[in-house]
Amino acid sequence: MIGHEYFMRLALKEAEAAFKKGEIPVGAVIVSEEVIIAKGHNQTEALDDVTAHAEMIAITSAANAIGSKYLRNCTLYVTLEPCVMCAGALYWAQIGRVVYGATDEKRGFTRVGNLLHPKTELIGGILQEEAESLLREFFRKLR
Amino acid sequence: MIGHEYFMRLALKEAEAAFKKGEIPVGAVIVSEEVIIAKGHNQTEALDDVTAHAEMIAITSAANAIGSKYLRNCTLYVTLEPCVMCAGALYWAQIGRVVYGATDEKRGFTRVGNLLHPKTELIGGILQEEAESLLREFFRKLR
Repeated sequence: MIGHEYFMRLALKEAEAAFKKGEIPVGAVIVSEEVIIAKGHNQTEALDDVTAHAEMIAITSAANAIGSKYLRNCTLYVTLEPCVMCAGALYWAQIGRVVYGATDEKRGFTRVGNLLHPKTELIGGILQEEAESLLREFFRKLR
Repeated sequence: MIGHEYFMRLALKEAEAAFKKGEIPVGAVIVSEEVIIAKGHNQTEALDDVTAHAEMIAITSAANAIGSKYLRNCTLYVTLEPCVMCAGALYWAQIGRVVYGATDEKRGFTRVGNLLHPKTELIGGILQEEAESLLREFFRKLR
């Protein structure tokens, strides 16, 4: 079995793509049976759209790829803990598993409660330091 | 000043458009200085996409219309209380005001807490009966 770190590295690649475009560096991939069916990175600045988070783009793309809006047998890998909006979308998608890297103390959904579907497994802290270091570098450059 | 009912009637028209397409009948319009800058209706079935709620479509469209992802001087009129996902998006957009029709006891965001931006005004119950009756008719036909 390919491990969580393998897919999280691909999510980090997406985050780096966002970084290069001047977007807050968050990336995501969605995996079904060890195959990547969707990826996305934050594009809120480029699209001037608050809904264009990495996870939202990946969810829409994954649903398109498998022809179903339910992602029950899928795992989302995302470099940063999802926000309330993205957790709400993941709830509707009934996604099988959510794996995130860095914790988002301010805007992460877990500060509100478990907003995911009861059947969704949640794992945090995979390649956390890499994700955090990318975010830190981005915000340092902004100043 | 044009009242809340006027704009909610237009949101109800959007909900009716969803109904005719076999979508759960929820509609939304976004207004800035008494001008409608965006509208949307639920398209989760047609697009096979859990993120295609009326509010999400309207938020993206409004941001596009005014060239800003922040909707601080705007009011969203939506026929049903927003879900957690949509409330999260409205938070990021820092929308000025949210006006809804029917309460969503099961999936409405207020059961979780006030997820909106601290500056967002929230008003519920405008043309509530019309919105509820449309939803009831839809679910009765489904059975």
